[in-house]
Amino acid sequence: MSDERRILLAHGNGGRLMRELIEEVFAHHLAGPHLDTRADAVTLPWQTNELVLTTDGFTVQPLEFPGGDIGSLAVHGTVNDLAVSGATPIFLALSVFIEEGFELARLGRIVASLARAAREDGVQVVAGDTKVLPRGECGGLYLSTTGIGRLAREVRIGMDRISPGDRLLLSGPVGDHGISVLLARGDFGLAGKLRSDAASVLPFTQALLGLRGLRFMRDPTRGGLATVAHEIARASRLEVRLEESRIPVRETVRAACEMLGYDPMFLACEGRVVAVVAPEDTECAIAAWRGLPGGTDAAVIGEARSGSHGVVLRTELGGERLLEELEEDPLPRIC
Amino acid sequence: MSDERRILLAHGNGGRLMRELIEEVFAHHLAGPHLDTRADAVTLPWQTNELVLTTDGFTVQPLEFPGGDIGSLAVHGTVNDLAVSGATPIFLALSVFIEEGFELARLGRIVASLARAAREDGVQVVAGDTKVLPRGECGGLYLSTTGIGRLAREVRIGMDRISPGDRLLLSGPVGDHGISVLLARGDFGLAGKLRSDAASVLPFTQALLGLRGLRFMRDPTRGGLATVAHEIARASRLEVRLEESRIPVRETVRAACEMLGYDPMFLACEGRVVAVVAPEDTECAIAAWRGLPGGTDAAVIGEARSGSHGVVLRTELGGERLLEELEEDPLPRIC
Repeated sequence: MSDERRILLAHGNGGRLMRELIEEVFAHHLAGPHLDTRADAVTLPWQTNELVLTTDGFTVQPLEFPGGDIGSLAVHGTVNDLAVSGATPIFLALSVFIEEGFELARLGRIVASLARAAREDGVQVVAGDTKVLPRGECGGLYLSTTGIGRLAREVRIGMDRISPGDRLLLSGPVGDHGISVLLARGDFGLAGKLRSDAASVLPFTQALLGLRGLRFMRDPTRGGLATVAHEIARASRLEVRLEESRIPVRETVRAACEMLGYDPMFLACEGRVVAVVAPEDTECAIAAWRGLPGGTDAAVIGEARSGSHGVVLRTELGGERLLEELEEDPLPRIC
Repeated sequence: MSDERRILLAHGNGGRLMRELIEEVFAHHLAGPHLDTRADAVTLPWQTNELVLTTDGFTVQPLEFPGGDIGSLAVHGTVNDLAVSGATPIFLALSVFIEEGFELARLGRIVASLARAAREDGVQVVAGDTKVLPRGECGGLYLSTTGIGRLAREVRIGMDRISPGDRLLLSGPVGDHGISVLLARGDFGLAGKLRSDAASVLPFTQALLGLRGLRFMRDPTRGGLATVAHEIARASRLEVRLEESRIPVRETVRAACEMLGYDPMFLACEGRVVAVVAPEDTECAIAAWRGLPGGTDAAVIGEARSGSHGVVLRTELGGERLLEELEEDPLPRIC
């Protein structure tokens, strides 16, 4: 029996096909006691301590965009995977794939930005590797960063701890990164003052670590808020109900989405957190977030409840609709 | 003043241009107490213990070749960077860049090979990430692996510990990997039974860790044995003298090099170690290596001595010549 299926762009969009690819190929062959393909980062025993490990590849086009570039993104993205796992990021390793012909000055600018982001986020880049690819074979520059962090204290969070009634919290507006990158391509003749939200979410995650009712945190990147909601629904075997009117979306993002036919629910963020918190800790969590720089739009956007409908969106008009999992409709590359 | 210099393929070949790129761009911006651009892996404080970290990108063409593929290479390569640092490899993180249109069956074969190599080498793949790139933008598949290891015992090795009179040892023939990959391209109409040497060198590195006179170890990959010899000469401020007649090279490798115009001294290995050992421990080290599977060709190939000529090759005819550092003559991509 021959298997002539091929990789599609949609295998990389964070949605159903990507999940199936990871399960069928990677988890299938690499199964082991520590591998968890659904986790942002993995906690590993290390003699008497524990360390938290994560890795992420970055391929954004264009390489530079308002509010960031592939260098700062590669730091914030990996820092954020550690942060939402309850860890404090400490060390980064950097693997670089460069296309022949790439301008050295541009490379220098991007690496300087990466270094600045590392200083801002409090991590040290301690290992690296560089490969050069023949002209025409690579989209200019790809980066892969691997992060090592330390659990700040006895943190036990995970999707399996989510119960009916728990609230979903979002730390800020969705879609800023996705729309900023799309507009930076210039394909649409649109321009604006919008900047990517790319930044460390560590202040937001640390603000919740002391809450007994903290269940789970995740940063909505590829596949956006909708994909995080689906991951929660699937892993917790609960239904996630989101209130559309409570999800913060900037007016410029909303307008661009309407013009271009995108749904902000599926757009990548690079500096936001979704947290699931017990009802009694919700007010405290939102107050903590709103006190942080960039946290004024933090909101309770929904809840987990018994049910088997996956993700249900209560629309601004008062109706309800099922929010589908991201399928074969890949967005352009934005992270 | 504008800087219009661009990346050349030679910036990736392991030689002088690559060293300068790393110093000028990466080390310049990312300098810190733990970053050492000349090390295979870095030892980091981790509470009361230490951990050893390394990262490496893999872009070999063709993706599958006699004796291995990009999957097994990505495991052995990173395992070996930990091993030559005196560490025992424990965990791997895997970052995958796949081109749209890549055959799923082929991906499965490569990931299965990667998993097999990880089992053989005794490491666990515990974290991963997948990105899909548009068709035509990536050479099929690139991998990046990051490895975490533990120092086996109180190991203190480094190029700064090398003294005049110390011997250079090589664990097996050079060039098997480079020539196997070149022939697998089919460009030359040559074929043979040669297989890549890609494998874990951990048994070879562990066999020497108990020797008081062990100074330094490195696996000759990109840039080959010549590049390792230059790195040693530069960092130790000594001269490295190599005896051409003692450097093991298989007859098929030698013949292919003569036909194709390559120098085996610059060809990549993926399963060999160069060790620098005090004279009194040389015999013991060679005996230990020769007792290992694949170690029958282990040899003393030269020594470090006072002098400022870099790397001097004593030829088989009895003359001496300077072995230049790899310059702007990139070999095809072989790791």
